[in-house]
Amino acid sequence: MDEDALALQDATVAIVGLGLMGGSLALALRAGNACKRILAVERDAEVCAQAAAHNVVDQTSTDLSLVALADVIVLATPVRTILAHLAQLGQVARAGTVIIDLGSTKREIVQAMDRLPAHLQPIGGHPMCGKEVAGYDAADANLFRGAAFVLTPLARTTPQTRVVAQSLVNVIGARTIVMDPARHDKIVAATSHLPFALAAMLMATADGLARDDDLPFALAASGFRDSSRLAASDTAMMLDVLLTNRDYVADAIRVCSRRLDEFASLIAKGDEDALRATMERQAKRRQAWFRS
Amino acid sequence: MDEDALALQDATVAIVGLGLMGGSLALALRAGNACKRILAVERDAEVCAQAAAHNVVDQTSTDLSLVALADVIVLATPVRTILAHLAQLGQVARAGTVIIDLGSTKREIVQAMDRLPAHLQPIGGHPMCGKEVAGYDAADANLFRGAAFVLTPLARTTPQTRVVAQSLVNVIGARTIVMDPARHDKIVAATSHLPFALAAMLMATADGLARDDDLPFALAASGFRDSSRLAASDTAMMLDVLLTNRDYVADAIRVCSRRLDEFASLIAKGDEDALRATMERQAKRRQAWFRS
Repeated sequence: MDEDALALQDATVAIVGLGLMGGSLALALRAGNACKRILAVERDAEVCAQAAAHNVVDQTSTDLSLVALADVIVLATPVRTILAHLAQLGQVARAGTVIIDLGSTKREIVQAMDRLPAHLQPIGGHPMCGKEVAGYDAADANLFRGAAFVLTPLARTTPQTRVVAQSLVNVIGARTIVMDPARHDKIVAATSHLPFALAAMLMATADGLARDDDLPFALAASGFRDSSRLAASDTAMMLDVLLTNRDYVADAIRVCSRRLDEFASLIAKGDEDALRATMERQAKRRQAWFRS
Repeated sequence: MDEDALALQDATVAIVGLGLMGGSLALALRAGNACKRILAVERDAEVCAQAAAHNVVDQTSTDLSLVALADVIVLATPVRTILAHLAQLGQVARAGTVIIDLGSTKREIVQAMDRLPAHLQPIGGHPMCGKEVAGYDAADANLFRGAAFVLTPLARTTPQTRVVAQSLVNVIGARTIVMDPARHDKIVAATSHLPFALAAMLMATADGLARDDDLPFALAASGFRDSSRLAASDTAMMLDVLLTNRDYVADAIRVCSRRLDEFASLIAKGDEDALRATMERQAKRRQAWFRS
């Protein structure tokens, strides 16, 4: 590693967006005493005041230009706001600044990063964790602990930039997985965006039934509660996710929908052997991949 | 209430099937000192020995004929085994015995109960709780606490039988909801059986992707974990559920599948306004119905 390379320990880190992810990152960096200063750009002035009052960040602004003071900028807003900010960073960030994001989809963000001036140092990122509650109040210094953190380097990403990003991942307790943006987007379409769609359409289906009957939700047990939880996800955040991963998400939903129709046909026909085989296969896979 | 009526406190209760539900019931009755004796019929002799050794039950047998000693029989096996046992109870249960079940679907069971000899006293039941792990080892005296417990009385069900069933529900900490079997089966098709189908087909979809890529499950976060949990449900139990509620379950899956296709179309078209409206509606409903 270059002797002049930036060490995270000596860096001023600017976090753009103090929601669940950005707020959790600020708390984790502070708890780990991981960098020199923490700046925050947040449109909600009350959240700025709260984070500053609790000494979670050193300086705040509702204006993006604060990032001019940073060595590392972390973009932690919904995806389309990240895209809008990337279009402005060429004007405000100083030369050599490392730019990383926490956005939930990666293709459009990495394309926008590639259009940044050559004096800026971008790398894509996505920590695979979350909650169905949004906002700074839900932030948690341990949110990233044990989670996978995808890094999507660009062709132009320097080894030094990778080292800084890797340090950030390490210090918050996550583990790095490097992959290309399209592969990331295809996988999360099935493992993250499809589960959201299933939860939302489960709610819609149960709600359709509840129009004729007031009891469905009185009978809903823990299974329904868990299965519908993602339907309460933050709409602004999820809307950006779906709209920047349209092809893969629509494909994943349609594949699942076709499988559901086939499953319904087996049930309607009472094809016991085929049903048992399908159910046992999925139960075994679920048991093999997760303990609980 | 009739002075001669059976009080649960003085009753010998036979539980048929010491799995998650039957085992939890035995533990709850024992913990509440709720009846005179607890008998258990269980095909697994090891489970019998374990429950007897821990003093959870007073007497066990692998043979159904033990229920001849009971004042109250609780059928706690998968649905089609309940149906098979109901066909035998006319020969083995003594006159006046109250027969209740814990089966997950109610129409076929209540029909079979209606065919019992007139000297037996049946009422259908279904506690709305569970776990995705099965078996006696997962049994828990508090499983029913706070849960809804559906009772489906027959036309022939006597007031005294209702009182005994109601006492049983009360003593294990559940709350009674009386409804007819078809309404029960239609509701649980959407709130319980559909979520199972979604979880299983989510696993199948993610697994299909994993055939070309080894990383999908490395990236699966808590959302996927919760959404797929029901796919690990006990196959024998769920197969009986689906096969005794075929029409309603197939309908619920198809309604949801159609909604998923519509949602996929909105995503593919990038119809932001319609997507936002749908997502906000479901998020609000989820938030209104459940706190977490």
